[in-house]
Amino acid sequence: MVLSFFCSAKSIDDERDELLKREAMVRLGGQLVLKKEEEDVNGKLMALKRAEIMEAMKTQKFPPSMHFFQAKKLIEKSEVFHVLKKMPKGAALHLHDFGILDMDWLVKNVTYRPYCHMCITPRGTLRFKFALPISPAPKKEDCSKWILLENYRKELQNVTEFDNGLLKTFTLVTENPEVTYADQDDIWTKFETIFFTISGLVHYAPVFRDYIIRGLEEFYLDNVIYLELRAMLHPVYELNGKTHDKEWCVKTYKEVADQFAKDHPEFIGLKIIYSDHRSKDASFIKKSVRTAMALRNRFPKTVAGFDLVGREDTGHTLYDYKDALLIPSLEYVNLPYFLHAGETDWKGTSIDNNLLDALIMNSTRIGHGFALNKHPAIMEDLRKKDIPIEVCPISNQVLKLVSDLRNHPAVSLMAIGQPMVISSDDPGFFGAKGLTYDFYEGFMGLGGMDADLRTLKQLAFNSIKYSAMMPAEKEAAMKTWEKIWDKFIVDQARK
Amino acid sequence: MVLSFFCSAKSIDDERDELLKREAMVRLGGQLVLKKEEEDVNGKLMALKRAEIMEAMKTQKFPPSMHFFQAKKLIEKSEVFHVLKKMPKGAALHLHDFGILDMDWLVKNVTYRPYCHMCITPRGTLRFKFALPISPAPKKEDCSKWILLENYRKELQNVTEFDNGLLKTFTLVTENPEVTYADQDDIWTKFETIFFTISGLVHYAPVFRDYIIRGLEEFYLDNVIYLELRAMLHPVYELNGKTHDKEWCVKTYKEVADQFAKDHPEFIGLKIIYSDHRSKDASFIKKSVRTAMALRNRFPKTVAGFDLVGREDTGHTLYDYKDALLIPSLEYVNLPYFLHAGETDWKGTSIDNNLLDALIMNSTRIGHGFALNKHPAIMEDLRKKDIPIEVCPISNQVLKLVSDLRNHPAVSLMAIGQPMVISSDDPGFFGAKGLTYDFYEGFMGLGGMDADLRTLKQLAFNSIKYSAMMPAEKEAAMKTWEKIWDKFIVDQARK
Ligand SMILES: [Zn+2]
Ligand SMILES: [Zn+2]
Repeated sequence: MVLSFFCSAKSIDDERDELLKREAMVRLGGQLVLKKEEEDVNGKLMALKRAEIMEAMKTQKFPPSMHFFQAKKLIEKSEVFHVLKKMPKGAALHLHDFGILDMDWLVKNVTYRPYCHMCITPRGTLRFKFALPISPAPKKEDCSKWILLENYRKELQNVTEFDNGLLKTFTLVTENPEVTYADQDDIWTKFETIFFTISGLVHYAPVFRDYIIRGLEEFYLDNVIYLELRAMLHPVYELNGKTHDKEWCVKTYKEVADQFAKDHPEFIGLKIIYSDHRSKDASFIKKSVRTAMALRNRFPKTVAGFDLVGREDTGHTLYDYKDALLIPSLEYVNLPYFLHAGETDWKGTSIDNNLLDALIMNSTRIGHGFALNKHPAIMEDLRKKDIPIEVCPISNQVLKLVSDLRNHPAVSLMAIGQPMVISSDDPGFFGAKGLTYDFYEGFMGLGGMDADLRTLKQLAFNSIKYSAMMPAEKEAAMKTWEKIWDKFIVDQARK
Repeated sequence: MVLSFFCSAKSIDDERDELLKREAMVRLGGQLVLKKEEEDVNGKLMALKRAEIMEAMKTQKFPPSMHFFQAKKLIEKSEVFHVLKKMPKGAALHLHDFGILDMDWLVKNVTYRPYCHMCITPRGTLRFKFALPISPAPKKEDCSKWILLENYRKELQNVTEFDNGLLKTFTLVTENPEVTYADQDDIWTKFETIFFTISGLVHYAPVFRDYIIRGLEEFYLDNVIYLELRAMLHPVYELNGKTHDKEWCVKTYKEVADQFAKDHPEFIGLKIIYSDHRSKDASFIKKSVRTAMALRNRFPKTVAGFDLVGREDTGHTLYDYKDALLIPSLEYVNLPYFLHAGETDWKGTSIDNNLLDALIMNSTRIGHGFALNKHPAIMEDLRKKDIPIEVCPISNQVLKLVSDLRNHPAVSLMAIGQPMVISSDDPGFFGAKGLTYDFYEGFMGLGGMDADLRTLKQLAFNSIKYSAMMPAEKEAAMKTWEKIWDKFIVDQARK
C-alpha cells in the first residue's frame, strides 16, 4: 500500500543515476580513477563489448552462456578477446603443475622422443614411461607389455589418427560435453585419469624441465608475467631409472624460472604451492604438512605454502585434516595456506564447510570459493581480512558446477567488489591456453555489460597484490606490470 | 604472510560454531523460534532431507539440479515433497490467469464440451472457439475452416493419440527439453503460442468461470489458501457471440472466489493484478494504467494493482513506460505496482535496469527479480523498504534462465534473508501443479542442506505478510494460516 510521491520524470532520472552510481562504485575496480588515455581505451573497448553483447542477444549465441568447448571458436573471433589477449593480466595464481600447457605439445613433441613406451591397463587407461630398450617390466596385473612408440608408429597406417586419439586421451575436450559427461562423477573420473596417464611423460626429467619452460612461455606470450603453481612434486625419473626427490623438483622449478626471467626481461618468475591430494588419510597429510614446512624452510623464496587438491565432493574435508593443518601454528612456524575450498554445489554439507575452515585456518587465498556467495558470514570475514578467492570460470563450467557462466556465483561477488583474482586452473585439460580465455569469460560473462576497464585493471592489479611474493618482490612486480600496462594503453589508444 | 595464532582444535570448533550460528541467524527464517512440537517435526523433516541429499550425492541424481521435466517423477517419490504438500504454504502471489491449472482439464473436459471448434493457422498453430452450429467464419488468411471437434473426434481412429497431441500443444513439457528448446527464443515462442492457442477455450464464459473454480481447487488441495492472479482481462464471450468486458471478468473472479471461500472454510480468496503486455507501445500502456486505476476504484477489494507481463528481454523496458507508470502518483491516486523485473540473464543492459525502475516506481513486490543478486544497491534498498521478490524456481529453469537450481541467484538471497516469497508462475504450462513443486525446489535446491522448517515457515508467513490484502484481511488470513499450520505440526509430530 505504498504511495509514491515523486513528481516528475526528472527526479526519476536522478534516482536512477544515483542507484547506478552506487552500484558502479562498489563494483570490482569501481573505485579506480582512469587516466585520460585509459578512458579513451575504455571507450573503445566498451564499444566493442556492447556490440558483441547486443549481437549475442539477437543470435542467442553468447559464448559465456555456452559450454567452453563449443564457445572456444566463437571466443577467438571476438574483438574483445583480442584486446584482452594483449592486455597485461599480471599473474596467474591458481594453476596446477601439469595442467598449464597445451596438451598438443605432449603428443607432438614428448611422445615422439626416443625411448617413449606406452602400455594399457586392464581398465583401458594408457600409461607412459621413458626407459632404455631393456624394456621396463610392469607387474602383469598393472599394465600390458610396454610398447616402444617409435616402433609402434612405424607399423601404423594412420599415425595422425593415432596422435589425434592420444590428444583426446590427454584432454577433456569433446564435441558434445553434455553427452560425454553425464555428471560430475564422469568428468572427474576422466580428469583424474588424465593426470595418471600423462604422469609418466611429465615426470621424465628432460620433459619435466621442458614442460616448465614451455609453460612459462605459453603464459608469457599470453601477457602474464608471474605464476604460482600448485605442485605435487612427485618423483621425477631419469632414463636409467634413477629418481629425484621433491627438493630436486623445487630446485629445478627455481632454476628454470630464473633462467626464463633472465631471457625475458619483463617476466618475474614462479612460486610453488606444495600440494597433496585430499583423498589421503589425515596421518599422511600430517607428513605432507611437515614436508611443506621443510621445503619452505629450505626454499623460502620459491615455496609459498601448502594446499590440498583433488575433488572436494569425494575427498576429505579440511576439518578432517585440522590436526595436520594446525601443526605449523602450534610450532610457531609460518606456513601459508592456499586452500581449495567451496568447489561444490552442495550447499550446507560438510564439504561446503571447507570454506569456513579455510577461513579459520587463515588461508592466504581461497582456491575457487565457488560456494562463497552462499555464505554471508564467510564473505564478510574474508573481505575484512582481505583474503581473495581465485575464480576459475572455465574450470567451474567444464567440471559441471555451473553451465551458463552468467549464473556463476562470482557475478554477484564481482558486483560488490569482493576480493578476487581470475585464473585458469588447468587450461591444458580444458583446451584453453594461458589466462585470456578465462579473462574473457570473466569480463563478458561474470562482469555483464557494465564491467569495464576498471574491473580488468583491478583484476590484474589484484593478481600481484594477492600473490605470495615478498613485499620487495611485489613492489618490483607492480612496477613492471605498470610499465607494460601503460605501454598497452598507449598501443590501444593509438588504434 | 598471515600467521595464525590459534592454539588448539577446541578454539577452532568454537570459531566454526560461531560462524555457523552467524549464518544460521541471517538465513531466511533464521530468527524464528520454533515451539517444542515444531522442533520435533523439524528434526524428522531434516532427517528426511539429509537422507535424500546424501543419496543424491551418491547417485548424482538431484532433482533441483535436473530439468524439472525430467525431475518431476523423482520429486514425486521424495518424502520431503510429501511433507511439503501437506504443509500449509499460505498464499501463491505470482501466478498468471490461465497458467494455474493442469492443462489436462482443458483437453479432457473443455474440448469435449458441445460447440467446441478448432482451426489451424497458416503457421500451424491451433485456435479454438465455441460457437453455435452456424459455424464462426474466420477471415481466410487467419485460419483454416472451423472444425467441430465433436464430429472430428468421431472420425478419428485414435482419439487418445489426438488428445495427447492436444495436451502436448498446451504445455511446454517434452522429454528432452534441452533438444526441443535450443535457446530462450525457442521456448518463449512456444510459451506465447500456448497462450494464443488456449485463448479461445478459456475465454468462453462457462469455461472462464469453471477455470477459476478448478484453479482455486487445485491450489486449495495443495494447501494454499489465497491467490493473487496477474490477469489480462481479455474479453470473455458467450456462445451467441456476445462479449463481456473487464469489469465483468473482475466481478466473475470475485463472485466465484467468494462462493469458493464459502464452500471451503479455510480458503481466504483471490485478488487480481491487472496486467498488460510489455510488447505494447507506451501510449497503449497509458490507457492500461488508467484502466487499472478505474478497476481498482470500482473493485478496491479485488483489484490489487497493475503489472506488465511478457518476456522482458524482447519487450519494452519499464523506463520506456515511465510516463505511463507515473500517472497515478501525479494524480495522487494509489495504484500499487507488482512489476515483473529482472527476469533476465543480461546483466547491465537496459532490460536489467527494469529492477532499478521497479524499485524507483515503488513496486509493492518484484516479479521474479532473478537478476537481483547482481545489484547490491537495489538489494539494499528493497530490503530497507521491505519489498520482496517473488521467486519462481521452476519457471526460471524451464524458461532457460538457469539450469541447475543450486546456481539460482535466490540461493544467495535466501542465505541473507532477503525478503522473498516462492510462487509457481504458470505451473500448468510447466507440467507442475499448485505450489508444492516450487516449494520443493526452493527448500532442497535453493536452501541447500541447512535450510530447515524455519525457512519454510518464514516463506509461508511471508506469503501472507507480503500479499496485497488489506490489514484486516491480512490479520484474519494470518490467524487462519496459523490454525492450519498448528494442525499440520500436530499431525506431523504424531507420525
Ligand atoms: Zn585447482
Ligand atoms: Zn510471471
